[in-house]
Amino acid sequence: MRAVLIVCDGLGDRPTRALNGLTPLQAARAETLSRLAEHGECGIIDVIAPGQPPGSDTAHLALFGYDPFRVYPGRGAFEALGVGIELSAGDVAFRCNFATVNDDWVIVDRRAGRINSEEARALAEALNDIRIDKVDGVQAIFYHSSEHRGALVLRGEGLSRMVSDVDAHKAGVKAHMPRPLEDTIEARRTAVALQEFVEKAHKILKDHPINRQRVEKGLPPANALLPRGAGTLPRIEPITKLWGIRAAAIAGGGLYKGVAKAVGFDLINVPGATGTVNTNLGGKVEAAIKALGEYDFVFLHIKATDSVSHDKNPHRKVEVIEWISRELTPLVKTVLDKGYYIALTGDHTTPCEVGDHTGDPVPLVIAGPGVRRDGIGKFDEISCAKGGIGRIRGIDLMRILMNYLGKVPLFGE
Amino acid sequence: MRAVLIVCDGLGDRPTRALNGLTPLQAARAETLSRLAEHGECGIIDVIAPGQPPGSDTAHLALFGYDPFRVYPGRGAFEALGVGIELSAGDVAFRCNFATVNDDWVIVDRRAGRINSEEARALAEALNDIRIDKVDGVQAIFYHSSEHRGALVLRGEGLSRMVSDVDAHKAGVKAHMPRPLEDTIEARRTAVALQEFVEKAHKILKDHPINRQRVEKGLPPANALLPRGAGTLPRIEPITKLWGIRAAAIAGGGLYKGVAKAVGFDLINVPGATGTVNTNLGGKVEAAIKALGEYDFVFLHIKATDSVSHDKNPHRKVEVIEWISRELTPLVKTVLDKGYYIALTGDHTTPCEVGDHTGDPVPLVIAGPGVRRDGIGKFDEISCAKGGIGRIRGIDLMRILMNYLGKVPLFGE
Repeated sequence: MRAVLIVCDGLGDRPTRALNGLTPLQAARAETLSRLAEHGECGIIDVIAPGQPPGSDTAHLALFGYDPFRVYPGRGAFEALGVGIELSAGDVAFRCNFATVNDDWVIVDRRAGRINSEEARALAEALNDIRIDKVDGVQAIFYHSSEHRGALVLRGEGLSRMVSDVDAHKAGVKAHMPRPLEDTIEARRTAVALQEFVEKAHKILKDHPINRQRVEKGLPPANALLPRGAGTLPRIEPITKLWGIRAAAIAGGGLYKGVAKAVGFDLINVPGATGTVNTNLGGKVEAAIKALGEYDFVFLHIKATDSVSHDKNPHRKVEVIEWISRELTPLVKTVLDKGYYIALTGDHTTPCEVGDHTGDPVPLVIAGPGVRRDGIGKFDEISCAKGGIGRIRGIDLMRILMNYLGKVPLFGE
Repeated sequence: MRAVLIVCDGLGDRPTRALNGLTPLQAARAETLSRLAEHGECGIIDVIAPGQPPGSDTAHLALFGYDPFRVYPGRGAFEALGVGIELSAGDVAFRCNFATVNDDWVIVDRRAGRINSEEARALAEALNDIRIDKVDGVQAIFYHSSEHRGALVLRGEGLSRMVSDVDAHKAGVKAHMPRPLEDTIEARRTAVALQEFVEKAHKILKDHPINRQRVEKGLPPANALLPRGAGTLPRIEPITKLWGIRAAAIAGGGLYKGVAKAVGFDLINVPGATGTVNTNLGGKVEAAIKALGEYDFVFLHIKATDSVSHDKNPHRKVEVIEWISRELTPLVKTVLDKGYYIALTGDHTTPCEVGDHTGDPVPLVIAGPGVRRDGIGKFDEISCAKGGIGRIRGIDLMRILMNYLGKVPLFGE
């Protein structure tokens, strides 16, 4: 028995005047989603807890069956894994921007004029030789990913993710010097190593020929790195061992790949899967159908619904939902024909009127053999709330799906 | 105020083609159950947790209001209590089979040809004199119950239930020598005592005249005991003290009697209550009505629904449900007439297509004075999911019932 879990990012929404008091899901003509609802059992999920706005990382940890309150290890490692960096237990990873700072470390531009990838890559190479001297046995490795973005990994014994961001998250203020966030040797060692790296990077970058050229051209120099979001690998049992399954993930966005990889999914790369509204969704769907031939459990992530929600564009969200519904048709048909299981939900609500994550529950449908069909014929926030699944927590979803797959051992006799 | 809790074992099911896409509860013409739904409030219960297949023991602990994740003490003590053995705190009890093993301890028949009770009882007597020498202050007591079944109790200071089964749970492989399941003196002492008992029992049994006769007749000798499922009494406050109630239990199956006894119910024995489809259900119902004259809370367990589910017989399950509904009529009438409370549910789902416990929720109805009638007119998995109770956990049921009985003290002022 097999199952596919489809997560449309930021899928949940609120009724909006722009759609005559409907939510985008209610307003959409999404035949395949309606068909799924007809064939399945519906409900709503508090992905973290009622009213709690989830981050994308904690939301996916919960949907994969892990308690984010216990295992969330910060965002950095997920981002690093998502761009293909291999991490070891104990590594502390940071997201980094190339940025422009003045001589007093006041942030002038958090993205260094959105420096192009070619220049940023060359700058990154110049950081290869940085050695950490102030803390014993610690190595700093910087990886460029795209444009102004990169990841820093501190590797060595006795490090901690409990250090503050260097990034001040806005321009016009001084970058922060890293502070330990708890009173441990590990946090202090990490803060010292991070500060040394950031200072040495600044020294190398500010005089780098590429930055001299940028200044000559009137462009902001990428003269500093601003690490943020320290994170480690989560200390968990991989999803494959926990349930005894082969599991594959298909996603465009790096973060989602990273969380999936961190919990033990195999990543399936699809050309043109970008994690944007221009993604190759047809290719992802095709890859998911193929993956169901080799894996017990396939996770398919679709980002576009969230992007248009952050853009506060409900009409566009309706279109995106209709597009997703059309593109999912062959996958839904395959799953229902083969008698597999399918679950479709969101990772959080992103109301178009708010433009950011909120803590409202998200709709859920599960279809497959023996599912208690509940007569709900439409997949939206309000219809699903009347469904047979009722209201569950994100962390419960995985066990419910694995129960259908016969993978949950009896507790007791 | 009084209440009766009726648990039909393995009551929950899934829609099945054999019943044109209905569940057995949906397909059944069960007037009394429908009447209960009409008069009551309905819902669904995750007995342990969403998606978690419950054992019968953990399920009943939860339905009696105890968190099985915290207090589950293994199955052995429940089985021992269920056949009338008195246990003390600290005792470690095992379920045992008389079995046939060869000279290398390979299991030839786990039930020794389903040896009859008379012969097994005589063999059991021969085991009375076994003394444990290798562990100080430990006594082994073996009790025969029925046919090939019995219970072993290890009694003494410093024992633990964390020892592995001797029973390999299948024929054709060697019986296991008991191992400590945790690194404690208690677990090691228990494993050593258990091994000594099993070896001494084998020595006595293999030369016993009854077994010599069996071999002569071409029957498998009952030459070994295979203990399994080590368990102790749960460390809990009895249900009677916890809520300040007099509580009685009526059940046929030994395990259910055992769990009820372990948590403090008085057991009411009903002649012909066998825990099978041939049970004296009329007698049990009569006993429940009578018990409501003397007790605040009466638990009535009906096993037949589970038995036919394990047999994968949905049509038979429909018949059994209709039979139960008819037999319950006088009890439901009495309760509603007297203005008492009644709750009816299952301890887990056993889909006829699966033939084993699964983690799907079970339906629940509660009727009685002041219950918020929700307009649900049929008692089945799908109708109940739309009821006013919504989706609750097994551990919550008891407090909900005790609330109607006015037995839950205010928290705060």
